[in-house]
Amino acid sequence: MKKLIKQKETFLTDMLDGLLITQPELTVIADTVVVKREKKTSGVAIVSGGGSGHEPAHAGYVAQGMLDAAVCGEIFTSPTPDKILEAIKYVNNDAGVLLVVKNYAGDVMNFEMAQEMADMEGINVEMVIVKDDIAVSNEEQRRGVAGTVLVHKYAGYLAEQGNTLEEIKEQLDVFIPTIKSLGMAISPPLVPTTGKYGFDIEDDQMEIGIGIHGEKGLHRTKMQDIERITQSLLSELFKEIKANDIIVMVNGMGGTPLSELNIATKFISNYLKAEDIVVAKWLIGDYMTSLDMQGFSITIVPNQPQYLEAFNAKTSSPYFH
Amino acid sequence: MKKLIKQKETFLTDMLDGLLITQPELTVIADTVVVKREKKTSGVAIVSGGGSGHEPAHAGYVAQGMLDAAVCGEIFTSPTPDKILEAIKYVNNDAGVLLVVKNYAGDVMNFEMAQEMADMEGINVEMVIVKDDIAVSNEEQRRGVAGTVLVHKYAGYLAEQGNTLEEIKEQLDVFIPTIKSLGMAISPPLVPTTGKYGFDIEDDQMEIGIGIHGEKGLHRTKMQDIERITQSLLSELFKEIKANDIIVMVNGMGGTPLSELNIATKFISNYLKAEDIVVAKWLIGDYMTSLDMQGFSITIVPNQPQYLEAFNAKTSSPYFH
Repeated sequence: MKKLIKQKETFLTDMLDGLLITQPELTVIADTVVVKREKKTSGVAIVSGGGSGHEPAHAGYVAQGMLDAAVCGEIFTSPTPDKILEAIKYVNNDAGVLLVVKNYAGDVMNFEMAQEMADMEGINVEMVIVKDDIAVSNEEQRRGVAGTVLVHKYAGYLAEQGNTLEEIKEQLDVFIPTIKSLGMAISPPLVPTTGKYGFDIEDDQMEIGIGIHGEKGLHRTKMQDIERITQSLLSELFKEIKANDIIVMVNGMGGTPLSELNIATKFISNYLKAEDIVVAKWLIGDYMTSLDMQGFSITIVPNQPQYLEAFNAKTSSPYFH
Repeated sequence: MKKLIKQKETFLTDMLDGLLITQPELTVIADTVVVKREKKTSGVAIVSGGGSGHEPAHAGYVAQGMLDAAVCGEIFTSPTPDKILEAIKYVNNDAGVLLVVKNYAGDVMNFEMAQEMADMEGINVEMVIVKDDIAVSNEEQRRGVAGTVLVHKYAGYLAEQGNTLEEIKEQLDVFIPTIKSLGMAISPPLVPTTGKYGFDIEDDQMEIGIGIHGEKGLHRTKMQDIERITQSLLSELFKEIKANDIIVMVNGMGGTPLSELNIATKFISNYLKAEDIVVAKWLIGDYMTSLDMQGFSITIVPNQPQYLEAFNAKTSSPYFH
């Protein structure tokens, strides 16, 4: 298998060992929970996590102004409740803990179980579930994708501003439903655990509405140029967005070069200009990836002054810019 | 062709249009020369450039503390002397201009020609040529690869510290020969201009000593695990490096996910620890890529206090961290 790894069994721990070299301000507790070496001593703590293979998510966002802990599962596999509980107990400062969870059955179940266990130990825990992927029509079944990183940032900002757990939860309950994402891929991820590609795709085909685990999307179609692709994605997104002042994230899927993300950005910008839509902030880069998949997603949020302030606020994460 | 582009003819201009959205503090003059919107008004100006396809190099490093201009050629093609001259004339503040050039025949010829033309216009221009790729045994023929980004940073730092053109040139003449890089790839770049892969490679093979234009390397060998790969690269590098206090860059080639760069970093660190070599600074990410090629390179510089200070100095480039 053509992967720059030692062996599939140690993918996660090898990656975390490397992460601590890249970001020496972090450390690992309970084998797979990434926390700050200097723990925050007051205020609400923000915890997220999920399967690995989405780097820099989630551990790369454990940083001043974003997460206090990331609970890392194996590749595309939810972390277990006991690890999530360890994270909660470690970061709690008596102001309570907020869990940011992507909407996948395993993640939701395990984070909920950890929340219950923490409750029994007297820790105040709230949970929000991100469902930004409009590729799934049933809103309750929508997956959490790149928009989750915006939730990490907004939650971290609200905590830094001294909001209570209940206040943060209330703000996020307004914010999260406004986040809409849609992705596409031209090549599947090669999954180390199976040694197989996430899906098969013809040389002249692309997948619209792709997930971040190599799941199939809305539909498969003939390869088009990037102008057509961005038009397709944006026209789907604007079926749900009624705003002419927005924040846009152009998210690379792991194997997409920056040159192509920049080219995509040009055509997204052209489309929005033609529709008289103003972009208050652009975020362009690899935020929530799917191993080495080639493709990208667009995430859009209607702009609000407090969102803009949150996304512009300083963070020590090198991956949120 | 599976590329997220509009058409091969507009790759460069589309990318630059997108870049200005990503980095609104930049602008483009003379069609393909990226400069700061707010031009530096004193001190030595630093100019680099070369073919495109290496993003974020070179335009992503036009930033406070790094470059004043990047002259962007078409994909894997040197920019022309007239564009380089435009860049020189635009950024010059009477303190002179330093050109940082990667060692490729076309780049060296065109930058030299521009230097001569600038000389005739009375502008003081010096040039340094980076030859860090040890895959080529003849030192004079060595290619300039990822180490070039360290030269951008050190040169930008020296200029900010108020050094004269001659002083910067002198410092770089000491620094540049100490930079050693070696790369590898498991997959070739898909080159938009030709619609073809840079090279063919078997499913169980990898290329050691790869260049950044899909050129072949030192040798091809059976795919190995990352521990063996890093051992091979490092043992080659340490044939030329006699230092036990070093700075290390782990550079992704464009299609390599961060998870795998972090895993590579772990095994590089293990090797160095076993050899009692101290790493004063790590740089891990996509600095000098080759379109969507999957692979990475290791760059090593013996540590010196002034290098460390330069690499730790603030820059507004989001890509040097």
